[in-house]
Amino acid sequence: MQHTLSILTFQTDGPGLYEVSEHVSEWIAGTGISRGVLNLLCQHTSAGLLITENASAAVHRDLVRWLDAAAPEGPGYEHATEGPDDMPAHVKSMLTGSTLTIPVADGQMMLGTWQGVFIAEHRRDPHTRSLAAHLLGD
Amino acid sequence: MQHTLSILTFQTDGPGLYEVSEHVSEWIAGTGISRGVLNLLCQHTSAGLLITENASAAVHRDLVRWLDAAAPEGPGYEHATEGPDDMPAHVKSMLTGSTLTIPVADGQMMLGTWQGVFIAEHRRDPHTRSLAAHLLGD
Amino acid sequence: MQHTLSILTFQTDGPGLYEVSEHVSEWIAGTGISRGVLNLLCQHTSAGLLITENASAAVHRDLVRWLDAAAPEGPGYEHATEGPDDMPAHVKSMLTGSTLTIPVADGQMMLGTWQGVFIAEHRRDPHTRSLAAHLLGD
Repeated sequence: MQHTLSILTFQTDGPGLYEVSEHVSEWIAGTGISRGVLNLLCQHTSAGLLITENASAAVHRDLVRWLDAAAPEGPGYEHATEGPDDMPAHVKSMLTGSTLTIPVADGQMMLGTWQGVFIAEHRRDPHTRSLAAHLLGD
Repeated sequence: MQHTLSILTFQTDGPGLYEVSEHVSEWIAGTGISRGVLNLLCQHTSAGLLITENASAAVHRDLVRWLDAAAPEGPGYEHATEGPDDMPAHVKSMLTGSTLTIPVADGQMMLGTWQGVFIAEHRRDPHTRSLAAHLLGD
Repeated sequence: MQHTLSILTFQTDGPGLYEVSEHVSEWIAGTGISRGVLNLLCQHTSAGLLITENASAAVHRDLVRWLDAAAPEGPGYEHATEGPDDMPAHVKSMLTGSTLTIPVADGQMMLGTWQGVFIAEHRRDPHTRSLAAHLLGD
């Protein structure tokens, strides 16, 4: 058994879900490990990491709208020094979570047919977002 | 150290929490690995995976009611082609999450006394739900 | 490659976020494993585990207030036998989640600059909270 670590980076450009499945799959292919488990950590507190529907952009827009309604911008936050979209982003990041663990077989993440891995970006400004990735297996 | 992968399947019959702890425990016992870490992925986007209270069905009903109130069915969703319970199910799945990582000792998941592992089913129709399971250890 | 398991315990004293990053880091340092992956499970159903902003106590207060508003105490719960803060705590624990998986390099969790690991305590009374920790690597 072996293991490997890497930092995978992605550009985001405003709130939304950004699918990273293909980029992650290419990284897995390059490691030579075909069977094991992948662990991912989104290294940010105003963006999250989730598995959701991979086929419909309308689903992604509905998820983003739900998060906006659940944690709206407004005067209700004590922490307001980093912009009106900052504290809502921390709430949304708490809700979507920051880490995922995904079994790998035949060199592929064992995702369901309709599943993809997404960075959930919660800030307005463009950001470079990084995932710490650990792959273990043989 | 060794590791093993499997797909565990479960039947659901409408919205609710379905405890899978015993089924998962039996699978662990069959692997011969007694000390390590278990990783689980729910391979669906309209069902989730969570650890919660294992003793009270009232707790489960309250959790389901909370999710229903947080993501109600209704006309407010753009994605509406797969039935009124589909988009709320994607929201609920985002909230409960899809993956869990659980240390294992003495052949048992190291859950707290009151904890169980549950599939959270968010659709009305009966479904076969699958968990990708990876166990590593010795 | 080697792995090790431990139970890490923490005292809480009422609702709030309690940073455990330093305690976890010290445990990692004592294992002699410097590169691999850490898995954590909060062994309770009325407290959670999350990664969030490590610098601002105002962020933590806002997160707690958001959770209080999302799952308020009140007469709306069927499960009410363990006190008014019990069922809201189970909801909050579902939202924050119970497990985390964090890559480790150079003997350190690969957290982002602004990230810390926190126990989210949702009960009023003081509690001893335990994390099951599994570290794998070399």
